[in-house]
Amino acid sequence: MKYNKITPQIIDELIEIVGERNVIYDNENLEQYSHDEIAEKVYAHMPEVALKPSSEEEISKIMKLANKYLIPVTPRGAGSGLSGGAVPQYGGIVISTEKMNKILEIDKENLMIVVEPGVVTNEINDAVKEDGLFYAGYPMSVESCYVGGNIAENAGGGKAVKYGVTGRYIYGLDVVTPTGEIAHLGGKRVKDVAGYDLIHLMIGSEGTLGIFTKIYIKLMPLPKETIDLLVLFKDIDSAISMVPKIMTFGKVIPTSIEFMDAASFENSCKYLNENISSEGSGAMLLIELDGNSKDELDNESEIIGNLCMDNGAIDVYIADNATTSERMWKIRRNITDAWKQTNPHVVLDDVVVPVSKIPECMRKMQELSKKYDIPIPCYGHAGDGNLHPNPHKNPNSTLDEWYEKIPRLMSDIYKLCADLGGSVTGEHGIGNKKKPYLKFVLEPVQIEMTKRIKKALDPNLILNPGKIVDICD
Amino acid sequence: MKYNKITPQIIDELIEIVGERNVIYDNENLEQYSHDEIAEKVYAHMPEVALKPSSEEEISKIMKLANKYLIPVTPRGAGSGLSGGAVPQYGGIVISTEKMNKILEIDKENLMIVVEPGVVTNEINDAVKEDGLFYAGYPMSVESCYVGGNIAENAGGGKAVKYGVTGRYIYGLDVVTPTGEIAHLGGKRVKDVAGYDLIHLMIGSEGTLGIFTKIYIKLMPLPKETIDLLVLFKDIDSAISMVPKIMTFGKVIPTSIEFMDAASFENSCKYLNENISSEGSGAMLLIELDGNSKDELDNESEIIGNLCMDNGAIDVYIADNATTSERMWKIRRNITDAWKQTNPHVVLDDVVVPVSKIPECMRKMQELSKKYDIPIPCYGHAGDGNLHPNPHKNPNSTLDEWYEKIPRLMSDIYKLCADLGGSVTGEHGIGNKKKPYLKFVLEPVQIEMTKRIKKALDPNLILNPGKIVDICD
Repeated sequence: MKYNKITPQIIDELIEIVGERNVIYDNENLEQYSHDEIAEKVYAHMPEVALKPSSEEEISKIMKLANKYLIPVTPRGAGSGLSGGAVPQYGGIVISTEKMNKILEIDKENLMIVVEPGVVTNEINDAVKEDGLFYAGYPMSVESCYVGGNIAENAGGGKAVKYGVTGRYIYGLDVVTPTGEIAHLGGKRVKDVAGYDLIHLMIGSEGTLGIFTKIYIKLMPLPKETIDLLVLFKDIDSAISMVPKIMTFGKVIPTSIEFMDAASFENSCKYLNENISSEGSGAMLLIELDGNSKDELDNESEIIGNLCMDNGAIDVYIADNATTSERMWKIRRNITDAWKQTNPHVVLDDVVVPVSKIPECMRKMQELSKKYDIPIPCYGHAGDGNLHPNPHKNPNSTLDEWYEKIPRLMSDIYKLCADLGGSVTGEHGIGNKKKPYLKFVLEPVQIEMTKRIKKALDPNLILNPGKIVDICD
Repeated sequence: MKYNKITPQIIDELIEIVGERNVIYDNENLEQYSHDEIAEKVYAHMPEVALKPSSEEEISKIMKLANKYLIPVTPRGAGSGLSGGAVPQYGGIVISTEKMNKILEIDKENLMIVVEPGVVTNEINDAVKEDGLFYAGYPMSVESCYVGGNIAENAGGGKAVKYGVTGRYIYGLDVVTPTGEIAHLGGKRVKDVAGYDLIHLMIGSEGTLGIFTKIYIKLMPLPKETIDLLVLFKDIDSAISMVPKIMTFGKVIPTSIEFMDAASFENSCKYLNENISSEGSGAMLLIELDGNSKDELDNESEIIGNLCMDNGAIDVYIADNATTSERMWKIRRNITDAWKQTNPHVVLDDVVVPVSKIPECMRKMQELSKKYDIPIPCYGHAGDGNLHPNPHKNPNSTLDEWYEKIPRLMSDIYKLCADLGGSVTGEHGIGNKKKPYLKFVLEPVQIEMTKRIKKALDPNLILNPGKIVDICD
């Protein structure tokens, strides 16, 4: 694709649409829109202009202008992504949703909240808590990410074992299409089979098929009780082997089964000045249960605790109050930031395998760690088979060695997961980071279907180009 | 579109692919493939040939042949649909999945069952029950429908309030595309954001985007306890007004909240020779709760029972054993067949509104009943806002009057539901029956997107043409 550059005349037209204060074109202020939270800057690209529209009408006008002049447009939430999805690969326009951050309606009768895309995910639960309701989306960046970005990447997170991922809760989406039309998909009805499922086509499409402007999210009654178990295991193998057993033998679907190896756990504790004794343990599971019956939860946590102790656990800490639970979860949520601070040369990755294949995946990943002489601390949403390996530069190796080895190691990890029936990304997305590896998990026919859908809905290929697949005509 | 007719030479080629005994081309045996379970035959069309393939390879060859000769192909499950989805609108080939009826694998570690599309939905639960597992799909035709058809229509059913519809449980789909390619979408991984959500694009696409050949379905631990409440109300309004209240004030998401008006309930009882006293009541709710704690369920059923009694209920029958529960559910499941037997001139319909709008929808539907002088008994999955109005010919009117009035009445009903924020179909699909009304719920931009996706994936428009939308080039 040949895209055009943004001219001063186009800037004037953009100012006409969103107002001067919502058009950013000086390099210093543009830099923040050139990257997401990937640690290394190799995936960053500078936009030519960043816009902060306030309405679907403004976004529609921007898209029509972009089609007229053939300018690429990249939508952006909080920029907390980890696959380069919000990075303007070909320059052009970034549309930031930061000003579209209003909670529009809390509808208690229909158990729905209606929000703009720039609402921080955590604010949803803050807003509905006093009505005894909750939204089950819980990415680890819940305190900073935008719900619009969660939908664009179909974010998973800590509660997906029991509650599923973001997409399950999205019943309506107002969308500006790549050609600048406004489509109001779904709404407050909870069932609807009239036509293709365009909502799920938008969910996880990484901003390549539409820009969300209004979102209808399903809420549920907040469970009255929660218990968290932090279970310490001697080694990774015994911890990870428990995961399929909990659901099969325990006959319980926990809210969460999070895995942390000791290195990740301890590094996050250090980062947070947190002091939880983990001596002698090589890996941890953080297991959450929720429900309305305290007795039932006590019973379930006993079943799971015993099952763990029978299978090589060293110790089980139980948190049955919000403060202690939050202490445990804070460690889990901060692992990524802690690794980034420890070592700037770190790949914050995301892969997935069928739950039964987690032990084999972890063993083979450790073999790869040895083969490449690169440490691969690992954590993640083990209950979903969704792991976050974080390979980082061995202090004993040179930067040249690191940059030479890391693409080969990552390719081997992705291939391993795909061969085990998994995928190259469970929740972070393909973005511009994992395009070369998509072929490990999608057959040529699926890549062709993806391209055909993209071309059908975005004939000028101007919405978030260079993501998921490269389309060359 | 101009399609070609099937010649004797093409029949020979089809025999070559699936074998002579799996090719049906005599009119007497073809008739069964010309219609689904819609009561009146106005939507029926005869195929020229029906095929019973046994593998994805055979289906792939059929599709390649159909593309070569420009022959329309209509996939078919059990034919239990109610929107004409499996009807060969333009003749040509029907592909019946009746021979692809094997349960291929029960994977207890990953909580998945892998099946062929022709498996009867109920057989899934029969197969996994002894392992303490279950599949939450529960269309009212569960004893006869095929799971492939459930996916094609994204069937809802009796447990969707708590568990969601069919699509939530589908993690992998092997599909033959309209052009005869074989695509293996997803699998046993429970999270995956690599590329567009092609699985959800297939789900509910009514056989227009692909033919399913293998299905990966998520299972859950079977809840240990179930309680059903049959609540009798004086009139429709008091019953239906309870629905949003149960979830809002009760803070409980029941497994099911089914609504039946007295006419539907009594007609089904008569059909089944069932004798449950309902004197003085105008409408019923059948409410199911499930969970692992008997105490918790007793508590919840008391909350709901009291809430109903405080809001105009006459009586609450409680079923806490499988036999009594099944008696109640059998009445609910057989309402459709009972109405069909009572009156051949009946529209077994399906609409949906936001839960909060059910009372208004029901009141306005009763006004329409009076206006047109057509009885509209109604029942359905009220907990989802999904209603099944069944208008039938008034015995006092002529057939001419019926055929003149019914399209206008149905159009008014669909318009009413769309105007209330609902849709023209909650679970039956558009098929060939509701195409004229799709515009009530989809904007022109959404219909255009639908057509573009269809053309992108089925360039010759040969897979189930004449369904959902008409595409004229």
